[in-house]
Amino acid sequence: MASFVRSIPEGEDRERLTCADCGFIAYENPKIVVGSVVEVEGQVLLCRRAIEPRRGFWTLPAGYMEMAETVEEGARREAWEEAQARIAIEGVLAIYSIARIGQVQVIFRAGLAEPGFAAGPESLDVRLFAWDDIPWDEIAFPSVRWALHHWREAEGAPLGLPAMNPPDDMRGMRPLPGDGL
Amino acid sequence: MASFVRSIPEGEDRERLTCADCGFIAYENPKIVVGSVVEVEGQVLLCRRAIEPRRGFWTLPAGYMEMAETVEEGARREAWEEAQARIAIEGVLAIYSIARIGQVQVIFRAGLAEPGFAAGPESLDVRLFAWDDIPWDEIAFPSVRWALHHWREAEGAPLGLPAMNPPDDMRGMRPLPGDGL
Ligand SMILES: [Zn+2]
Ligand SMILES: [Zn+2]
Repeated sequence: MASFVRSIPEGEDRERLTCADCGFIAYENPKIVVGSVVEVEGQVLLCRRAIEPRRGFWTLPAGYMEMAETVEEGARREAWEEAQARIAIEGVLAIYSIARIGQVQVIFRAGLAEPGFAAGPESLDVRLFAWDDIPWDEIAFPSVRWALHHWREAEGAPLGLPAMNPPDDMRGMRPLPGDGL
Repeated sequence: MASFVRSIPEGEDRERLTCADCGFIAYENPKIVVGSVVEVEGQVLLCRRAIEPRRGFWTLPAGYMEMAETVEEGARREAWEEAQARIAIEGVLAIYSIARIGQVQVIFRAGLAEPGFAAGPESLDVRLFAWDDIPWDEIAFPSVRWALHHWREAEGAPLGLPAMNPPDDMRGMRPLPGDGL
């Protein structure tokens, strides 16, 4: 098994994760999450998570971007994997930085390219919610709440400059309530 | 030294880079580049690269985002490192996917927050160019050309929906002329 230690490699200016056995430097880079707010006749599509963290909580169809895909392709893949939905992307709704965990989220506004959706393997349930029925107390992550509010503000209007982090968490540093995530 | 092989780990659906000695899986994730088109009185700031690849060619102040920073902080840090410039970010100009190398570029439109710039350690030269004087044959990467054209199209107007890849390279798959990069 690899055992990693933090140290500053020669010629660098900050700590990196280095394998104590073989010297391999595991560069940690921010990860990109791609996802979308999918609207169907004024309602938004949410997925109930079947996996940790936040199992049982509701989230957008979103996940880590893979190599060799574009941001749009990643968002379409995640909508298929998590909600068995074929989406039509309209444009970028928001870009969030979650500096606390080294994450950038690119969130699109989208509709369904063809009717139908269902829970994929990582979802317990997938449903459409009218704004007033959104289960705000059971939302998985703060950025899901941000994206839903930014979607609501832009509803019915053409997309403009994407939303960024809200003023009360400009760097994405607030831990989740309860579990330190 | 670590020696890595490509294989499909148990429970996964695609090849990952695995250390043959210790079994460590080096997940390859797309990397985020943050940068900006910095305008000063109608001219744009370009840096002549002091490092490979594309040494001697002109580029935007841009580079890999680090952990624990936001996209805006990353773009400001890169402008300082490469052009010794303190920039004021206006908003997102473009988001490009370079699927061929697993890269997402978030490019801002910016001005100078205070006067002055100079070549940082990774630049041979930093200069302002009027549109007609941009050295198009010595531009380092296609996405620099894309960003300059998108900047030119939006010049003087408020920023709207960010530009994405141009129609002739929707996935960012074209190698650079000459060197296969
Ligand atoms: Zn090792
Ligand atoms: Zn190893």
